[in-house]
Amino acid sequence: MNPGISQYAVGDSFDGFLLIKSATKGTASNGKPFLTLIVKDQSGEIEAKLWDATKEDEATYLPDQIVKFHGEITQFRNKPQLKIFNARLAQPTDGVKLDDFLEKAPVSREDLMESITERIFEMSNPNLQRITRHFVSNYQEGLLTYPAAVKNHHEYVSGLAHHVVSMLNLAKSLVDLYPDLNKDLLYAGVILHDLGKLRELSGPATPSYTLEGQLLGHIPMMMDEIGAVAKELGIEGEEVTMLQHMILSHHGKGEWGSPKPPLIREAEILHQIDNIDAKMNMLNRALEKVQPGEFTDRMFAMDNRRFYKPLFTEPS
Amino acid sequence: MNPGISQYAVGDSFDGFLLIKSATKGTASNGKPFLTLIVKDQSGEIEAKLWDATKEDEATYLPDQIVKFHGEITQFRNKPQLKIFNARLAQPTDGVKLDDFLEKAPVSREDLMESITERIFEMSNPNLQRITRHFVSNYQEGLLTYPAAVKNHHEYVSGLAHHVVSMLNLAKSLVDLYPDLNKDLLYAGVILHDLGKLRELSGPATPSYTLEGQLLGHIPMMMDEIGAVAKELGIEGEEVTMLQHMILSHHGKGEWGSPKPPLIREAEILHQIDNIDAKMNMLNRALEKVQPGEFTDRMFAMDNRRFYKPLFTEPS
Amino acid sequence: MNPGISQYAVGDSFDGFLLIKSATKGTASNGKPFLTLIVKDQSGEIEAKLWDATKEDEATYLPDQIVKFHGEITQFRNKPQLKIFNARLAQPTDGVKLDDFLEKAPVSREDLMESITERIFEMSNPNLQRITRHFVSNYQEGLLTYPAAVKNHHEYVSGLAHHVVSMLNLAKSLVDLYPDLNKDLLYAGVILHDLGKLRELSGPATPSYTLEGQLLGHIPMMMDEIGAVAKELGIEGEEVTMLQHMILSHHGKGEWGSPKPPLIREAEILHQIDNIDAKMNMLNRALEKVQPGEFTDRMFAMDNRRFYKPLFTEPS
Amino acid sequence: MNPGISQYAVGDSFDGFLLIKSATKGTASNGKPFLTLIVKDQSGEIEAKLWDATKEDEATYLPDQIVKFHGEITQFRNKPQLKIFNARLAQPTDGVKLDDFLEKAPVSREDLMESITERIFEMSNPNLQRITRHFVSNYQEGLLTYPAAVKNHHEYVSGLAHHVVSMLNLAKSLVDLYPDLNKDLLYAGVILHDLGKLRELSGPATPSYTLEGQLLGHIPMMMDEIGAVAKELGIEGEEVTMLQHMILSHHGKGEWGSPKPPLIREAEILHQIDNIDAKMNMLNRALEKVQPGEFTDRMFAMDNRRFYKPLFTEPS
Amino acid sequence: MNPGISQYAVGDSFDGFLLIKSATKGTASNGKPFLTLIVKDQSGEIEAKLWDATKEDEATYLPDQIVKFHGEITQFRNKPQLKIFNARLAQPTDGVKLDDFLEKAPVSREDLMESITERIFEMSNPNLQRITRHFVSNYQEGLLTYPAAVKNHHEYVSGLAHHVVSMLNLAKSLVDLYPDLNKDLLYAGVILHDLGKLRELSGPATPSYTLEGQLLGHIPMMMDEIGAVAKELGIEGEEVTMLQHMILSHHGKGEWGSPKPPLIREAEILHQIDNIDAKMNMLNRALEKVQPGEFTDRMFAMDNRRFYKPLFTEPS
Amino acid sequence: MNPGISQYAVGDSFDGFLLIKSATKGTASNGKPFLTLIVKDQSGEIEAKLWDATKEDEATYLPDQIVKFHGEITQFRNKPQLKIFNARLAQPTDGVKLDDFLEKAPVSREDLMESITERIFEMSNPNLQRITRHFVSNYQEGLLTYPAAVKNHHEYVSGLAHHVVSMLNLAKSLVDLYPDLNKDLLYAGVILHDLGKLRELSGPATPSYTLEGQLLGHIPMMMDEIGAVAKELGIEGEEVTMLQHMILSHHGKGEWGSPKPPLIREAEILHQIDNIDAKMNMLNRALEKVQPGEFTDRMFAMDNRRFYKPLFTEPS
Repeated sequence: MNPGISQYAVGDSFDGFLLIKSATKGTASNGKPFLTLIVKDQSGEIEAKLWDATKEDEATYLPDQIVKFHGEITQFRNKPQLKIFNARLAQPTDGVKLDDFLEKAPVSREDLMESITERIFEMSNPNLQRITRHFVSNYQEGLLTYPAAVKNHHEYVSGLAHHVVSMLNLAKSLVDLYPDLNKDLLYAGVILHDLGKLRELSGPATPSYTLEGQLLGHIPMMMDEIGAVAKELGIEGEEVTMLQHMILSHHGKGEWGSPKPPLIREAEILHQIDNIDAKMNMLNRALEKVQPGEFTDRMFAMDNRRFYKPLFTEPS
Repeated sequence: MNPGISQYAVGDSFDGFLLIKSATKGTASNGKPFLTLIVKDQSGEIEAKLWDATKEDEATYLPDQIVKFHGEITQFRNKPQLKIFNARLAQPTDGVKLDDFLEKAPVSREDLMESITERIFEMSNPNLQRITRHFVSNYQEGLLTYPAAVKNHHEYVSGLAHHVVSMLNLAKSLVDLYPDLNKDLLYAGVILHDLGKLRELSGPATPSYTLEGQLLGHIPMMMDEIGAVAKELGIEGEEVTMLQHMILSHHGKGEWGSPKPPLIREAEILHQIDNIDAKMNMLNRALEKVQPGEFTDRMFAMDNRRFYKPLFTEPS
Repeated sequence: MNPGISQYAVGDSFDGFLLIKSATKGTASNGKPFLTLIVKDQSGEIEAKLWDATKEDEATYLPDQIVKFHGEITQFRNKPQLKIFNARLAQPTDGVKLDDFLEKAPVSREDLMESITERIFEMSNPNLQRITRHFVSNYQEGLLTYPAAVKNHHEYVSGLAHHVVSMLNLAKSLVDLYPDLNKDLLYAGVILHDLGKLRELSGPATPSYTLEGQLLGHIPMMMDEIGAVAKELGIEGEEVTMLQHMILSHHGKGEWGSPKPPLIREAEILHQIDNIDAKMNMLNRALEKVQPGEFTDRMFAMDNRRFYKPLFTEPS
Repeated sequence: MNPGISQYAVGDSFDGFLLIKSATKGTASNGKPFLTLIVKDQSGEIEAKLWDATKEDEATYLPDQIVKFHGEITQFRNKPQLKIFNARLAQPTDGVKLDDFLEKAPVSREDLMESITERIFEMSNPNLQRITRHFVSNYQEGLLTYPAAVKNHHEYVSGLAHHVVSMLNLAKSLVDLYPDLNKDLLYAGVILHDLGKLRELSGPATPSYTLEGQLLGHIPMMMDEIGAVAKELGIEGEEVTMLQHMILSHHGKGEWGSPKPPLIREAEILHQIDNIDAKMNMLNRALEKVQPGEFTDRMFAMDNRRFYKPLFTEPS
Repeated sequence: MNPGISQYAVGDSFDGFLLIKSATKGTASNGKPFLTLIVKDQSGEIEAKLWDATKEDEATYLPDQIVKFHGEITQFRNKPQLKIFNARLAQPTDGVKLDDFLEKAPVSREDLMESITERIFEMSNPNLQRITRHFVSNYQEGLLTYPAAVKNHHEYVSGLAHHVVSMLNLAKSLVDLYPDLNKDLLYAGVILHDLGKLRELSGPATPSYTLEGQLLGHIPMMMDEIGAVAKELGIEGEEVTMLQHMILSHHGKGEWGSPKPPLIREAEILHQIDNIDAKMNMLNRALEKVQPGEFTDRMFAMDNRRFYKPLFTEPS
Repeated sequence: MNPGISQYAVGDSFDGFLLIKSATKGTASNGKPFLTLIVKDQSGEIEAKLWDATKEDEATYLPDQIVKFHGEITQFRNKPQLKIFNARLAQPTDGVKLDDFLEKAPVSREDLMESITERIFEMSNPNLQRITRHFVSNYQEGLLTYPAAVKNHHEYVSGLAHHVVSMLNLAKSLVDLYPDLNKDLLYAGVILHDLGKLRELSGPATPSYTLEGQLLGHIPMMMDEIGAVAKELGIEGEEVTMLQHMILSHHGKGEWGSPKPPLIREAEILHQIDNIDAKMNMLNRALEKVQPGEFTDRMFAMDNRRFYKPLFTEPS
């Protein structure tokens, strides 16, 4: 198989299939129209230019199309760019499919589901367990396919479940180290904390924000759903309020979208491990792309820092 | 009738009934126990000291009791204080009742209700009208008796409805001046915006925060209830989302408790008029207490400013 | 009449007159000079490119010239651009004049003046009335032609008076709703609050900042002028200080340019209604440009928010 | 002569004259009235208690009275307190006068005036020189007696002139080191920068804020006066605007009371040397009160820092 | 054995030994001297009042003395206070010793040391291992006795080692979950991160800040020591710089005392787990003191929040 | 001699030598490669474009090469640009050398060294004098050649010594004006405060940040070195701690890189004069480039302000 698009160097020629993520028309300084495409495969994405584009080109090369490109990697403002020599839409006989071009979690859906199920099974509080199980059953497909975010961290197919399972592992360690923590509440909070993203985002593959997502946000919507499910299951009592509070406060502060800060121990910890797992995901993926002795690009979601990869940190 | 407690000057003697708001025990430097009471009538409140308090006194003078006091107004750290000479619980034959000691809105319940009803009647969007009417019917008693806040503004019986009606008047003026505003959405938002306080606060008379109020807050709880009521009434569509957004965003910013800032025109205006009416209520009441040519005390909710009352602003 | 320039779509050809707002020379990658013009009519503005510009072109197409253009609407970085095929200066025989290309307030000068006069007439405090009348008489031409700001809100011919009249309407409503407000002080403050812009800005049509405007600012300059006028008219007393304070504090905070925050009730309200009217002006004009179901562009002066136009808010 | 009040230790008895700065009535826990006085001499101030105060005492021991006290230094909440055994008003025959109890600048009025005159003499720009000389002549008495501030720095008789002369010395050094600086502008700015305090504060001895001072502030008032004086002297041109800008911007930022930040080189330097001289005044006086090896109290105006006095910094 | 002082309720009488932490003299309103003592045992501390204190009392009841008190628990400003009836210094025959009155880590010194040694043993990078071992050998006594902080978290004997061992456990879990982390660097960072506190604080029992601690701080001092030790051991290369960076950046931000933010992955994680372990220590100890269904006091180091202890979180 | 590159106007032709600071490859919209060079001489720098660059060009025109260019000054995005017609590397026979193209301090190395030596000679505390002399001897070459910063202020050859000498002059003035200042401590602090830049930056000519510089920073590294030197010289006592504190705190605040704020008087003054000298250097150089009556460009390090150059400030 070909190397991914992000492995190509300036000057390399390219021949292969890529998925169009977005397409924009422009007019060159010579007055001729051109197309700017963002194209991608599982390894990453690149900007591509189709100069002297015809009306037909404009009508053909649209988002979500898979296209065979022939071109060369050039450089524009310090970033690589694909200069397209020619292009054609993928044919059924090419044997390529959408899934091959989307980045995915490095763990299988089955393994992710099993990890979640196992933790639910360990819960001893029947109210929390029933609510959690209800959501996991009813939203299983979304939970296992959606990304955890549109960008920054876990922004790939199954990213949501991958994030949840990583956090469950962290939660399990913390429960062992700090036995005062209420395991049931923490597990339920971890599993449900971002499930409102199924309403906030438009879908698993190339997600955008829904109207509800923009005007209400996943946090209040999920608090709302927990209330409704509890009522539906006939569950009353403090567990429901505590679980709703966990969801509501998991961003930690008003400025970050939580109308209440964490006011119970497990809510504070949920916020902390959400933070750690998101940061580890971002850092690991950014550091993978650089050589020992180099710095990463500025990372917006890490206060714009550039991280260094020490020379001696190579796996032993 | 006697003047209110806030009209007494240092050196005056006092004889009359007051409501106990809180009671705390202490030990004087001579080793003897004493009681510190916060006592009030409709005009305001004062700290009172009962020196050499007996065990019986401690068991008798409890919050929410009406008591006949004989004493004198002294001064402590620049604030007036009631030094109690003697005290006894009110008797049925005294003919005093709780209501006489609570500050109330300056408009009657009937008039407040009529104003609200009139605005609902003017609404033309049936979905928004039905949702609003449903809440007003179901929560009428609370709406007409709760305060709008525990302190700072409209913190008196019927304060919530008083605040709503003032804001409705403002909203009506704005709709006339800026006809692009959607009147129905704005009226519905005004009427419902703080109704979550009925769950956030413990009651109309001497309100404290409920557990739900502290961990979830009135904003997400009210958004939640609107969703439930819309479902119950079989109403779907953008009106529901917009109304939920109005509630969610009416504090204006994350730091002030709104998980989303206003993102529609009417939500921005709802935030503005909530702000103006709260400030006018605070300013008017603070300026009433000072003479022309004087400054008020520092007002915490007005960025700690002291406001000046000009010599020439007396009503003409 | 032709549609305005902001109604043209990419691909349309254009033939008509436009006013040049600014002109910049550049060198294309082929080494040839070109001109970048910002051109406008009452509907808005667009960037235009004149490729292969001659020395004569550079000397001809200057700011404030009206020019007949033939060209086509293209797209550059997601914004429309006018590609000029040919151009010539407007001739006297073309019958076009500067005024036709400038955006104006939607209310006539006469109506604006009448509204202001009416409010001054209603004032009962002779000192405040005389000072206000003096300014309105002496600065009438500027008051009726200047914009209220260089950008963001009321940034059109007569924008200052339009803003003042809108705020007077708001002030009148508030005085009715909150009778404790001093009407005279509030009206005087509204009418004079931004009059310092006549010294801060260079003129009514294509305003820039004067040196005084940049180094002193309209707020202290206007406070200064009120003091001078009061002295000239032989008026002394608290009204002058209060009116100066209204001007000084109307931006609300030090960070926003007010060396004192509002410390009297009417100053607080002046700040609030200045804020509301500016926001309504920005929101209404931004929402006019989008279809129901769409979001506006990010609005810098609204904390960079994008506002949504609901599907159901169409005027009934 | 007696040591100053600030040299007394807990347990010492006191016999001498002190000036009353403020007097407040209170009621002790035994129900008896007492007086809390703040009393002072040139060395500092102390809280004093007169227990069992009579009505006559209350009418006698008023602010600005000089009183002979007999008492003892005790301690209350970690601060020394004067417990009064007896007291009487000073008599003409006691030979004490107000001036003896007020802290003064360590430089004589004559020397301060001479330094200022000398700098004005060195100015070569006639416009700036005339304006500066006009103010110094017309406000000489106030300039030489007012404090520079109510608290924190140079808060003593002649503090304003002391601050100005210190800053002039600094300015002279800077003009030598950085010859690009415009000496005339800088000297004029230094001499006039705080002269608005003569309207902001009530008087030289025990200053409080005037109404104008609170609602307008010394910065805009002084800018205003410079404009009026320039007009009176028939001076026009950029010097006036620059000098007004120097005054307006000398607090450096909007948050600190300047409606414009420094936008010319000399304004930036004026802000810097104002800052340095105020800090040196505060630091020197705070460090004088502690022994080598000790820290000062927290200094509010120095970001609440406590400063250390090294063991080896004693004068050589 | 007696219950600890923090278990006593208002009204209880007290008879037992307590350690004096601080002693302050005061004068009562009746003119008589009294002593305010802060006294403590392992369970917590309380304010105590010795009224009518003699000169002898003042000379006897000094910090670090163990005293037998007879008295009663009263209440002052909502806090319990011990009113002392009589008191005497502990005698050798009483069989009480300093250690009995100091709070200690809940894990023995031996176990703490063993955990640290075990992790050092697991390190595979010889440079990092040698540096870490050198510090642990040379500073073993301090590491095993000092608190981790003067207040807020782990502020007890052996608190530093307790904090380190807790963090090592967390680090071990994270290394397992995120295998890209460099274990050696993380372990070395955890063990050394706060070792500068041995120079910053005066001692293990009742620590205060040293002069060096106040003027330099534990972070730069420890970076310095690592450089010196590396030189002494003849170790060069990136490991030293990385380890110094870990120490320097572990507070996360400039505002929190780190001159550099974390710029390598392990430094970010060190900051995170320092944060989590400190918070868990504070939360667990605060929640232990309240009953299910109650809130804790405001916790200053947790952004002033009060935390709720759910009714259903009791250990199963 | 030719005028410097920064004196050329758009339209001028250029013939002369320039030093390449950086070189980047690009691909034009016609598909042909081009080079973007930043080229400089002592007067400033300019962007240059070599269109249709060959592989040989790419290999030849590299950073730090001196090149003879023939071309023309054009304009791109409001900035001048050099369009290269032809180019060749400088030959030995051209008689040009690196030094001729680097900006230098306006004072000679010898004079700078003499000023520093003179101040050290005036110091009377032997410990501070010995430490300071040791550093100046050992790091003389770096001190006299390094810039004080990579950009903003004193960013030229010998900029560090130029900044130090300017600050010493300021310090001398302040010591005269405020005799309480400890001269020795202040001089030592000034001379050493930025010496850590010799490790933070890669070299004197075209400096970049070293790895140590990025991860540790010059402040903690210099504190560290002072400790090591003091130990080497056998110097103990408070002088060392105070000097280390001066270095550590000279950026003034945590946000600005100082882990401790100034806590001794001389540290506060060191911070202030570092600030003033950096600002004067930036302001003077920015104002030199504009004509009287103009504003400078926005200055990032001056809070993004543009400064005005008054018409009347020309040297008399």
